[in-house]
Amino acid sequence: MNEFSWKQNHQSSTSLARTGIILTPHGKIETPAFVFCGTKAAIKSLNVNEAKKSGTQIILSNTYHLMLQPGAEIIAKHGGLHNFMNWDGPMLTDSGGFQLFSLGHGSVADEIKGRNKNSKRKKSLLKITEEGALFKSYIDGSDHLLTPERSITIQRQIGADLILVFDECTPFHVNKEYTAHAMERSHRWSERSIEIFNKKSEFDSQSGSSGRQALYGIIQGGIYQDLRDISIQFNIENDFFGLAIGGSLGSSKEQMHEMVKYTASKIKTKQPVHLLGIGDPIDIWNLVKYGIDTFDCVSPTRLARHGSALSRNQNGKINIKNASYKNDLLRLEETCNCLTCNNYSKAYLHHLFKTNELLGFQLLTIHNVYFMNSLMIFIRNAINNDMLEEAEKKWYLI
Amino acid sequence: MNEFSWKQNHQSSTSLARTGIILTPHGKIETPAFVFCGTKAAIKSLNVNEAKKSGTQIILSNTYHLMLQPGAEIIAKHGGLHNFMNWDGPMLTDSGGFQLFSLGHGSVADEIKGRNKNSKRKKSLLKITEEGALFKSYIDGSDHLLTPERSITIQRQIGADLILVFDECTPFHVNKEYTAHAMERSHRWSERSIEIFNKKSEFDSQSGSSGRQALYGIIQGGIYQDLRDISIQFNIENDFFGLAIGGSLGSSKEQMHEMVKYTASKIKTKQPVHLLGIGDPIDIWNLVKYGIDTFDCVSPTRLARHGSALSRNQNGKINIKNASYKNDLLRLEETCNCLTCNNYSKAYLHHLFKTNELLGFQLLTIHNVYFMNSLMIFIRNAINNDMLEEAEKKWYLI
Repeated sequence: MNEFSWKQNHQSSTSLARTGIILTPHGKIETPAFVFCGTKAAIKSLNVNEAKKSGTQIILSNTYHLMLQPGAEIIAKHGGLHNFMNWDGPMLTDSGGFQLFSLGHGSVADEIKGRNKNSKRKKSLLKITEEGALFKSYIDGSDHLLTPERSITIQRQIGADLILVFDECTPFHVNKEYTAHAMERSHRWSERSIEIFNKKSEFDSQSGSSGRQALYGIIQGGIYQDLRDISIQFNIENDFFGLAIGGSLGSSKEQMHEMVKYTASKIKTKQPVHLLGIGDPIDIWNLVKYGIDTFDCVSPTRLARHGSALSRNQNGKINIKNASYKNDLLRLEETCNCLTCNNYSKAYLHHLFKTNELLGFQLLTIHNVYFMNSLMIFIRNAINNDMLEEAEKKWYLI
Repeated sequence: MNEFSWKQNHQSSTSLARTGIILTPHGKIETPAFVFCGTKAAIKSLNVNEAKKSGTQIILSNTYHLMLQPGAEIIAKHGGLHNFMNWDGPMLTDSGGFQLFSLGHGSVADEIKGRNKNSKRKKSLLKITEEGALFKSYIDGSDHLLTPERSITIQRQIGADLILVFDECTPFHVNKEYTAHAMERSHRWSERSIEIFNKKSEFDSQSGSSGRQALYGIIQGGIYQDLRDISIQFNIENDFFGLAIGGSLGSSKEQMHEMVKYTASKIKTKQPVHLLGIGDPIDIWNLVKYGIDTFDCVSPTRLARHGSALSRNQNGKINIKNASYKNDLLRLEETCNCLTCNNYSKAYLHHLFKTNELLGFQLLTIHNVYFMNSLMIFIRNAINNDMLEEAEKKWYLI
């Protein structure tokens, strides 16, 4: 019955970096892996065939968005999200917690990047009680109560392979007392999530996934090491398939790295570890050394729509809208084998962005997705050969 | 040297409808055929691989747009438009005349559809002289003089297989005297186009096409049968590979059908006939009976971006944004074998348009392109079997 497994391939001798394989009913995920965001059951401007050809192993969709539009029931009627969006590989859904609270409080990435919190969005979160979180739909203003039971039920209907417990994602600017209070409540929500998750028979009939799902716990505790310790202890004592690192990771990249490093180093169990919502290419080299197995981040596809192509140059990217590419007959990246690099010049891509052709978004997204997957292959090979430090230099020097 | 040919396969016994094959250095075009618009060197929201898989035979690009952005020189540096946009099949460019004058006067389609002329656009055309037409760039306001010599030179640099003489496309609201005057000038421009076209050696070095192009004449005369007669006479006396029907075709669909029928019936030569800028699916059934071999129109791809999927229902299309599709688990068209119909439900497509996902444009464009190509295959088979009337009924009754 249990079609999920996690097998470690190789443990680095110089860091906590490791390679492994997560097996799901929809195939394997070689780790470290990048999880691409298909927030609303679609990777932005990319069809799933191109996503697969570009090396994509796993797609993430967001419970929060999908429960509001199109609604979990219609996805269940399709036999689940895989059928709905025509993706036959592994999928992950978050619990709605991260989205709900980051839209309510301002997101972790907003904090790290120093962006102002959007006051309009703040209004979406109405009330947090022991039962769950009451919020307003950003679509039609209707009220919704998201509880652990409802989150898991919805994730069952959606039917991704890997699903998450319902948690409160606290922002950086709350104090330690609130963070501790929220963490304890999130732990109680985790227990309720596990309880409802284990009642498989209740959901089998209405779920597109036929109960074939694996549950991740979420480690809370914000920026407080002692709270992180407590949350790690709680999470490893429970029978989760995998563990995700959630909650606030601070207000700077340095603090984020420090918190992830601390947290991951304390886990010490044989479970795959996911880092929620963070995965800029530049960060991944360090994050894998802390022992992170999977990452999700909107940046590769978002950058593409803004004209930024990921690159192995020292800046990590190029802006194709720059006038210097107007007459550039060369491909985006000399060493890249993606459909875009193999068939188009920078001058053509520059032209597409100059004329607002939708094809430009598509071709740059293909490149960025392929690039991220190539990066992860490069990193996996480096870990397997115990040459991660050398590999990082090589990646950026070419 | 001549790698172009036109071979008629079957002439209908009940109308002027016929099937044939246009051979070009980039492959064959089975006719009647639909030419898809890649105005600015890209089919909107569709990559060329999907265009090919959806049965596309030939793509049209617009000289007027390309000369302004990115400029013909950069396309020539790529070895021509085929390399620039990565399409290895046949291509056609218009001469810039149709676009220039339709933007100046208001387009033929605008007239037929009763749309108001855009006063902002009217300003783009500054002056028409014997030498050519002076206009302002819609991009940067710079002045450009387009002459027959310059149009053909640019089309050589761009390097499409089929190219057009430079003409003035007169609008419906001008009188017969002006139409006659413009027609005569267009004939003189045609002679200059032919002269420069025949000086192949001058262009071979700078053209990506190595001089491998075939020239179409354009039949003018507006809505006046006697003027059409004169223009047909002029065009068939010259050595064109093919003939295009241009100029004003009236202010209503009925008048357009009447004018096309009259003009095509008078051609009586063995040349492929192209109808410029018209090709709604609903019209094509009659237009092929008049003897039209190829059509171009932006409608299939434009409709897709507005959420309209072409259909064999009585309306000819469905609007996927309609709330009735919210829970519709069925494919767009029961009989369609496109990537979209084979893999997605109407509910999913409705969801994509509801959430403004770019993937929605892509998937509906794939359907509409595949649909048009299927329609043309259906029509070619019907002509070959002398069953065009029955086929039309069958097409819409399924």
